[in-house]
Amino acid sequence: MESAERIIGIDPGTRHVGYGVVERQANRLAFLAGGCISATGPDIAVRLVTIHRGLSEVIREFAPACAAIETVFTGNNPKTAIAIGEGRGVAVLSVAEQGLRVTGYAPAMVKRAVAGNGRADKDQVRAMVQVILGLGAMPETDHEADALALAITHARHYNDAALGVAAPKRGRTRGRAIPDFFLNQIIRD
Amino acid sequence: MESAERIIGIDPGTRHVGYGVVERQANRLAFLAGGCISATGPDIAVRLVTIHRGLSEVIREFAPACAAIETVFTGNNPKTAIAIGEGRGVAVLSVAEQGLRVTGYAPAMVKRAVAGNGRADKDQVRAMVQVILGLGAMPETDHEADALALAITHARHYNDAALGVAAPKRGRTRGRAIPDFFLNQIIRD
Repeated sequence: MESAERIIGIDPGTRHVGYGVVERQANRLAFLAGGCISATGPDIAVRLVTIHRGLSEVIREFAPACAAIETVFTGNNPKTAIAIGEGRGVAVLSVAEQGLRVTGYAPAMVKRAVAGNGRADKDQVRAMVQVILGLGAMPETDHEADALALAITHARHYNDAALGVAAPKRGRTRGRAIPDFFLNQIIRD
Repeated sequence: MESAERIIGIDPGTRHVGYGVVERQANRLAFLAGGCISATGPDIAVRLVTIHRGLSEVIREFAPACAAIETVFTGNNPKTAIAIGEGRGVAVLSVAEQGLRVTGYAPAMVKRAVAGNGRADKDQVRAMVQVILGLGAMPETDHEADALALAITHARHYNDAALGVAAPKRGRTRGRAIPDFFLNQIIRD
């Protein structure tokens, strides 16, 4: 299996950064890695260095070919929005400097892709990520779940776009049927 | 002269990043380097990589001990604010991963420090940076001028704080008197 089939999803931040790596295998997506990089302390400069190192290590270890990163255009105030940007900029840099293509997805699009509903709550996203990837347990953190959901979204989007199919075929994930509403969800908006 | 006396000022961005390195020498500040890293193209991921590489090279070459970066908490809309944050995050990362301490300064504070007026315009800042550093010509771009002004601000702030002086002594820069309003400006707000 070539790394061209590997996708890393990243839920950026300046304290907790979720990541998830999936691999396309025939008609299913396999879980390769997932976790959360936690950066502590009051100094954002130190935290950004921790995040950059952590993400760089994950990318070197699993060698994904492309990355999906959450795109947020909101923020209660400019200070919050700038902090969101700081975390996002370092995440984008981390993947781009290792040659990965980066695609951004809005949260509602990710929720629609994995849970069939742009307003799905965090519990639904975690549960659906477990089902789609056939995991033995739900992702430990929302950060990891969101990152895996981003990788799943990109896999489906990319697949549909590359193959020009209107709707993905039915498939099975470790013997578990993927719900119809997921299979019939076309991610092209 | 130890590198502990060297300061890099950075005017962050996602297309044009100004930088300026100054060195404290007895009672004056000497200009070591200044310029603007320009990153082109529509892909912000590629631009951030260019900016990170450019800043990292400047830091390796001139080995400053600390960095002053513009702090902005405004933005006409969240999208703009997030873009500002993306550029700022990569600039902060670039200096912090090489061990520099980072201090942020608001634009009004920088203008007060170099031009004695928190509402000074860009031409005044460029002209005063030339006078203070004894340059043969004004900095070529506003990005470079702003970066040098940040380094000057940090030098004065750090000096005052370290020495506990109420007002810096009078001094001369390459035979040119530094205006009183600059010398008597205390940067501690």
